[in-house]
Amino acid sequence: MTDQPIQKMTGAEALVSTLADHGVKACFANPGTSEMHLVTALDHEPRIKSVLCLFEGVATGAADGHARVTGDPAMTLLHLGAGYLNGGANIHNARRAWTPMINVIGDHAVPHQRYDAPLTSDITGMAGPNSNWIKSADKVSAVGEMAAEAWEASFGPVAGPVSLVLPADTAWLEGGKPGKARVRPTLRKPDGARIEAAAAAVKSASKPVIIISGTALTEAGIAQAARVKAAGVRVLTDTFFPRQARGAGRFIPDRMQYFAEGAMTDLEGSDLMLIAGTQVPVAFFSYPGKPSVLVPEGCTPMILGGPESDSAAILEALADALGAKEAADVAVLEMPGLPSGDLNAMTVAASIVRHMPEGTFVSDDGVSNGLPCFLMTQRARPHEWMMLTGGAIGQGMPLALGASLAAPDRKTLCISGDGAGMYTNQALWSMAREGANVVNVVFVNHSYRILNIELARTGAGNPGPVAQDLLGLGHPEIDWVKLSEAQGVPAVNATDAEEFDAALERAFAADGPQLIAAHVPAR
Amino acid sequence: MTDQPIQKMTGAEALVSTLADHGVKACFANPGTSEMHLVTALDHEPRIKSVLCLFEGVATGAADGHARVTGDPAMTLLHLGAGYLNGGANIHNARRAWTPMINVIGDHAVPHQRYDAPLTSDITGMAGPNSNWIKSADKVSAVGEMAAEAWEASFGPVAGPVSLVLPADTAWLEGGKPGKARVRPTLRKPDGARIEAAAAAVKSASKPVIIISGTALTEAGIAQAARVKAAGVRVLTDTFFPRQARGAGRFIPDRMQYFAEGAMTDLEGSDLMLIAGTQVPVAFFSYPGKPSVLVPEGCTPMILGGPESDSAAILEALADALGAKEAADVAVLEMPGLPSGDLNAMTVAASIVRHMPEGTFVSDDGVSNGLPCFLMTQRARPHEWMMLTGGAIGQGMPLALGASLAAPDRKTLCISGDGAGMYTNQALWSMAREGANVVNVVFVNHSYRILNIELARTGAGNPGPVAQDLLGLGHPEIDWVKLSEAQGVPAVNATDAEEFDAALERAFAADGPQLIAAHVPAR
Repeated sequence: MTDQPIQKMTGAEALVSTLADHGVKACFANPGTSEMHLVTALDHEPRIKSVLCLFEGVATGAADGHARVTGDPAMTLLHLGAGYLNGGANIHNARRAWTPMINVIGDHAVPHQRYDAPLTSDITGMAGPNSNWIKSADKVSAVGEMAAEAWEASFGPVAGPVSLVLPADTAWLEGGKPGKARVRPTLRKPDGARIEAAAAAVKSASKPVIIISGTALTEAGIAQAARVKAAGVRVLTDTFFPRQARGAGRFIPDRMQYFAEGAMTDLEGSDLMLIAGTQVPVAFFSYPGKPSVLVPEGCTPMILGGPESDSAAILEALADALGAKEAADVAVLEMPGLPSGDLNAMTVAASIVRHMPEGTFVSDDGVSNGLPCFLMTQRARPHEWMMLTGGAIGQGMPLALGASLAAPDRKTLCISGDGAGMYTNQALWSMAREGANVVNVVFVNHSYRILNIELARTGAGNPGPVAQDLLGLGHPEIDWVKLSEAQGVPAVNATDAEEFDAALERAFAADGPQLIAAHVPAR
Repeated sequence: MTDQPIQKMTGAEALVSTLADHGVKACFANPGTSEMHLVTALDHEPRIKSVLCLFEGVATGAADGHARVTGDPAMTLLHLGAGYLNGGANIHNARRAWTPMINVIGDHAVPHQRYDAPLTSDITGMAGPNSNWIKSADKVSAVGEMAAEAWEASFGPVAGPVSLVLPADTAWLEGGKPGKARVRPTLRKPDGARIEAAAAAVKSASKPVIIISGTALTEAGIAQAARVKAAGVRVLTDTFFPRQARGAGRFIPDRMQYFAEGAMTDLEGSDLMLIAGTQVPVAFFSYPGKPSVLVPEGCTPMILGGPESDSAAILEALADALGAKEAADVAVLEMPGLPSGDLNAMTVAASIVRHMPEGTFVSDDGVSNGLPCFLMTQRARPHEWMMLTGGAIGQGMPLALGASLAAPDRKTLCISGDGAGMYTNQALWSMAREGANVVNVVFVNHSYRILNIELARTGAGNPGPVAQDLLGLGHPEIDWVKLSEAQGVPAVNATDAEEFDAALERAFAADGPQLIAAHVPAR
């Protein structure tokens, strides 16, 4: 005799319990009518924490942040094609961060789909390009197995977002069955022959470099990177990476520069470029007369492993092959004094170093103010830095929300531009609702400042009044304190360095989310 | 000799000037690096007003509103695939409103596309399903002609959003040429034979109805609808339609009910269903055991013309064929007294009738509070009602922004649920920036109230604590006054009927945008 309760399982219950069986612990949800049975199923599943988000881009960004902290995929609940689109930009970002993520997209009941109701759209067509795997359940008995398959597919070969489309009838009908347990796929191990070839190439190169991302940026990976450096290979991280262990006691790799011409100058003379855990570096944007591929003339790229590989293991194998010893080249804690005078990214960064507790997760959507903060925190207390990898601004606060809920006993610091923060400001509400320990620092310069820089670089000419207007966020100036308080997050303005320092100290000491509007100059 | 300036035209200039030549008057923009030359081109084009939006969903919703008022497409400026996704839900809504719209999506320069840079994605794949026409410019000389083609394609055969993908190099290179002038496509005229057949069918039917949308809902169309009614045909509009002329002096058609079972009871006994300017009616969502197609047993549907047709002309031809005389059955202005006591959708609606000036455009994203407002305003001063046709909430404020900028001398009233308003609250900032004459009424019930209703209807069971939490917007309560003031829009709370009435009177008398948080009960 089979178990009676299983016979009565709905498709929605099969999906939710199968994901819970596989270790999914969080669902970031913005449900609608077609997801009501999923809501009920989540109600009955204590292993998954459900978090309401008021906009789908918050849900998908939070799922990304949760997974970057835990290493396990979180699920989202999205309402048909339109809900998918709203969450799409942060799914794009997650794809570029190789973040496992399970997007569950509700759809009309299968017999209703043919009638072209108002919310009908080609979900698999729209979601396909940013999904590493996508399927639509056409019968209730298939849902549980499909959920297990989705979980497995989120790990790869290259990890990333997957989409499971669930028509309402396959959610509400009984006849669901749990999916077969899957074994978690592992990252690809180093290829011995390639490692040997790389070690030989390094020995005959005059100026070898290695570009790293992925597990090479974990605490263990970074320690191996120090050994590779000690063996004479310059170590650079990608310009933007999902997560890096850094601060006191950890080796400081260089970082690829953002602007193509800067990167090329920096790499000049390099004759060997090893790649571990990422792709051959390319310019973020193209500009008239500037290079796309950031490999200098006369430099040979050599891929030891892409994002599907365990780049920490690659570094270890390479260091062994090079006969590198343990490296002691690590950052020593450097504590700046109280900054004073005008507030700018440098003084903000100094205060971050002073007050950011050990183990903090940083979500960096700081755009033009992000780099100074990054550089100045190299010798701060040990922490983890998470970046915007896909270029779609508006990730910072959602990512911080998800990271904080995955590590509630730690602090999460979100640094965001004001332009970036406006995209997904609804994340503040979910932070307040969940009491998330996020300290939000918004750089308020009333400008898409990066675009003023880019306008000049693209040679698009001097901005006239309309162009200036399209890049400026003044008129009216956004009151970030009110915007934050409106959504339940306590907030203060800071207009000079001392004021910011005191505010940041208080914010890190407080429980629950906080926001500081850091008023910095636009130029 | 050809004209020198034309020889020096960039692709971006060719695009912008061609659209201006065809009567495009507004660009709702959220540009990034790859759109810098379009920004410069807009700077030099005085015929197009450029409006900065802080989130792409605001831009696309505003373009929809602008077009619903003017009848001409507006353009948007979106930043690669991620920007398209952010704007996608309101593009979906525009497709369901048959609104012409030209979405210009910047992309990487053609030679850069192959390198899979962080913002690279399959734009045509993602944008295709919601685009009536989509092309990507592969050379600068083609851009102007493609812009003219896009303009023409936005009109049909069925009007809707089109997508023109513009790689950065085709924008920045010189060699652009204006596109050939196109003639504006017209709606399909009535088919005489079908009209005759319909008239004959009406004469032999016992309970004929006609379902209308499109031009049938203009002032002239509604007058013809009154004639059809006088000839014995019950007239119903779609449940959700792009725009309807209504109020004093205009015929009041019935409206298809939202819930399938209500619609079927309402239509019981109808034996002929004519369709003009829309599709055969279907249920918005499917529910266990409820019908999808809203045509009763024994009722014959007969399509006189879909959304590609001039449904006003169809009504006129049908009325003529039925020998209908001019109809005098129009609404008489009914002015309620000052409402008092608790605030609810009925008292809000009474105040709207009292204070809404003639010619107001209403943007209705009121969800569960929308219907009472709609019904109560049937005999208000003449006005135009615009609805959410595609079901993706978060359209109201953006649509109102665009409508208001298209009709700056009129008032625009936006009624929005609090859940709906949060999706695209950034529209408030653009309203403040542009001094748009929008009166925003937000129904604050701290709940996705419609989902509480739908949860019961779908038979998903009694909501437990997690489910209740996923449908409730309290904890924390959003302070709409602060949220609005933060973005430069003056705002007040109203908690009883008298207070709301006074606030609405003041809001309609003021210049520029205003917001009233109308605190109504959740049940």
